[in-house]
Amino acid sequence: MRGVGEVEQSVRRQLEYLFSPRSVAVIGASNTPGKWGFGVFNRVLRTSSDIRIYPINPNAQDVLGVKAYKRVVEVPEPVDLAVVVIPPQAVPAAMEECVQKGVKAAVIISAGFKETGEEGAELEEQVARIARQGGIRFVGPNCNGHFNTASDFYTTGEASFKKGPLALVSQSGNFGGHILQRGVERGIGFSKYVSSGNEADLHLEDYIDYLAEDEETRIIGAYIEGLRDGKRFLELAKKTTKKKPIIVMKVGRTEEGSQAAQSHTGALSGSDEIYDAAFRQSGVIRVDEVDDLFDVALALVRQPLPKGKRVGILTIGGGFGVVATDACRRLGLEIPVLTEETIQTLNRFLPPRWPHANPVDMTGEAERSYPCLGTLLKAENIDAVLAVGCVGYPSQSLDRYSGAVRERLEEYRQRMIEGELTLVDGLVERVDRYGKPLIITASTGRGESEAIAKLERNGIYGYPTPERGARVLSHLVRYGEYVRESGKD
Amino acid sequence: MRGVGEVEQSVRRQLEYLFSPRSVAVIGASNTPGKWGFGVFNRVLRTSSDIRIYPINPNAQDVLGVKAYKRVVEVPEPVDLAVVVIPPQAVPAAMEECVQKGVKAAVIISAGFKETGEEGAELEEQVARIARQGGIRFVGPNCNGHFNTASDFYTTGEASFKKGPLALVSQSGNFGGHILQRGVERGIGFSKYVSSGNEADLHLEDYIDYLAEDEETRIIGAYIEGLRDGKRFLELAKKTTKKKPIIVMKVGRTEEGSQAAQSHTGALSGSDEIYDAAFRQSGVIRVDEVDDLFDVALALVRQPLPKGKRVGILTIGGGFGVVATDACRRLGLEIPVLTEETIQTLNRFLPPRWPHANPVDMTGEAERSYPCLGTLLKAENIDAVLAVGCVGYPSQSLDRYSGAVRERLEEYRQRMIEGELTLVDGLVERVDRYGKPLIITASTGRGESEAIAKLERNGIYGYPTPERGARVLSHLVRYGEYVRESGKD
Repeated sequence: MRGVGEVEQSVRRQLEYLFSPRSVAVIGASNTPGKWGFGVFNRVLRTSSDIRIYPINPNAQDVLGVKAYKRVVEVPEPVDLAVVVIPPQAVPAAMEECVQKGVKAAVIISAGFKETGEEGAELEEQVARIARQGGIRFVGPNCNGHFNTASDFYTTGEASFKKGPLALVSQSGNFGGHILQRGVERGIGFSKYVSSGNEADLHLEDYIDYLAEDEETRIIGAYIEGLRDGKRFLELAKKTTKKKPIIVMKVGRTEEGSQAAQSHTGALSGSDEIYDAAFRQSGVIRVDEVDDLFDVALALVRQPLPKGKRVGILTIGGGFGVVATDACRRLGLEIPVLTEETIQTLNRFLPPRWPHANPVDMTGEAERSYPCLGTLLKAENIDAVLAVGCVGYPSQSLDRYSGAVRERLEEYRQRMIEGELTLVDGLVERVDRYGKPLIITASTGRGESEAIAKLERNGIYGYPTPERGARVLSHLVRYGEYVRESGKD
Repeated sequence: MRGVGEVEQSVRRQLEYLFSPRSVAVIGASNTPGKWGFGVFNRVLRTSSDIRIYPINPNAQDVLGVKAYKRVVEVPEPVDLAVVVIPPQAVPAAMEECVQKGVKAAVIISAGFKETGEEGAELEEQVARIARQGGIRFVGPNCNGHFNTASDFYTTGEASFKKGPLALVSQSGNFGGHILQRGVERGIGFSKYVSSGNEADLHLEDYIDYLAEDEETRIIGAYIEGLRDGKRFLELAKKTTKKKPIIVMKVGRTEEGSQAAQSHTGALSGSDEIYDAAFRQSGVIRVDEVDDLFDVALALVRQPLPKGKRVGILTIGGGFGVVATDACRRLGLEIPVLTEETIQTLNRFLPPRWPHANPVDMTGEAERSYPCLGTLLKAENIDAVLAVGCVGYPSQSLDRYSGAVRERLEEYRQRMIEGELTLVDGLVERVDRYGKPLIITASTGRGESEAIAKLERNGIYGYPTPERGARVLSHLVRYGEYVRESGKD
């Protein structure tokens, strides 16, 4: 077992070759669409960075118009990183040549190793031995690549990803791809991604160690099937979560799932209860599903952590209040009674019929949302605010209207949208001033509402349902508690 | 308490006036955007049906170009339905006039009744008394209207909804609107909708009674805060769920949520455990969140119910298999060992490295999905199939490519997409032939994949995550069990 700090410096330096290489050889680069070697080389080639790229293919003069070399040793310049996409049996020899060439790091995408049985496991051990002796650190095998948005360098993915604060490490390539795609749909930006595959050399712990110090990464997400070095993970997590949140989706909760994980990447799964306790003790945020991972990550992009679990709820109407209250209470959050001062202030904005209680039901008066949210953010006995269905006037098409009706509607809509837009800045300012998170849930997404889009540009994301908003708040509350407690150590 | 069958016929006849009126008066129709009376009248007016529509407004010559009447009694023809959007204090007098005019049914959208306290409750009782004595059945007050897609008649909503099998009854207007919007995003079609409001006259039970016999409705969804007549609901549900599924989102699980519900629509909330038991005993599918409601509804649109809980899982790679296995097991589903026959058949389609087990990991061979799914559907020891990440080749833009690479990619993509499309029919045919549900989860939605879009046109919907697919299956399994057991009575 490696201790924290012991190998840190060397691993970090070598991971630099992985994420920001100056020169890359793609061993198995191909001209045939549908082959991994086509997709990967194509993707590597489309970098906007000044990276020298060499296709390695014994049977081609060139690959996608770039002069090809039969073997990596023939490349006329030094090679930092080798990306390997050839049949498994050919990998040991290719790794020998990488050592000979002085390659620093490798990504072995090829499958057919430990995950296929004993023979594959031997082949994997052989590759690992060659690399170890030759001083090459590598990702995989049996992975789907990695990327770094800062250097615009990708060995995976179709499109480029938006730069952002979230780094993702996945012990499954296909599930990693799935997570990335969901992230794009949610509008979050990524710093780095790595699919760790069979982890014959570099382990998930190594990447987390690296990302903990990575300046572009402010939130670390991980999909975990099983850890090889639980104690090291725990130490790392404890150190990291004080300054950067780690959100984990750990599968293998059931015996069958755990077995499936073992046969998949050969990870030691261990009892899920032990994992759960370890995550709690080290401040790791554990989520159940991919959507939850992004729900929480989006809230962590910019929002402050709540200092307690008292939630102020603002809704456009009663039903939302019921759903939100129920969801908050089921998750152990509190819905405090409003102070007389808060009620007095809200009386200035709301009609007399409002129920004078938390949840604050605006009884339909949507245009009063912003001052009411500001009032709740300011309230001394409220730690976080949940806005349900009261922000995000929809900018829907008016094509179905015509004549005078359409004119009147257009004028009205414009007034509503502009009214909201002018109030967004003040709301963002209040979130900062009072240091409390504001969770907005709305049926309208950033595509349908200019106000939601503007809030999201300011790091305050909208969630589709009150239940999901409440779940995010409960994660923030628990993580906030952990950070405060661990600060006392 | 009314017994089942006792009032059925008369209520059903009167609800016909609600959903398919021949003439409608909108009391409070307005020319001012932002007012309910503007939105509602506008919406009513846009029907494509041959419904006579009369705006009632004492201060306008016309509303949106239609001749207005000062009072409903002045309308020169009979009025089937009155839609009421005026201040609460004016509602009793308006109801008196409706009685005088011989109006059959009403939708009272106006708020400011029981939900505001004692005074409002008295006003509500007064309105109910007038209506009862005059033979008018009414929806609300304090609701957001209703619609019937068959007659294209709407008192709520902005756009028209796609016709389809799902009817929705909501005890919250704003949450009802939220549910509808999520449904549109999910691509489901609606038959009817009604927001039941304070239920001063017509109760949720009445609508369910009506919808149970409604030919356009094949699935009933309900958002429930509290039932006024639990015993009647239970009897109705027992009778209905044998032939039509009822999916319920019931809130008020916590004491605080329950209180919020009570102060909202004045419903008697009751212990959540009693509700839970009642739902189970009557075959009602209870979901926790709106997204779950549609996940289940979409699966019920066309798919057969599973005859047991044994799930065959097909995945493109190991990670998906782990997540899916875990999710299924946590929900009590079984992942049976494959029979020798199934393994032999799959061997014909998959490369030797596939792990010969359930979940069936295709190790990347996406183009083999369709015969593998067919094999699993056919397997005698499998009751339902979950396909994870192996259907739905993305039709993404190739704009970022050019020249020969783009040509090759286009040719390849076209082949993949066409290949999938030709296989969809066969898959749908197998679902029918073997009478087993097929739940597809894919990162690509109907917007990104032609195959998913074609499957959805055939009633086989795609879900975004394996966890949600597993949850749907568990609901189908439980409901299937109930229907089989109740058939034995």
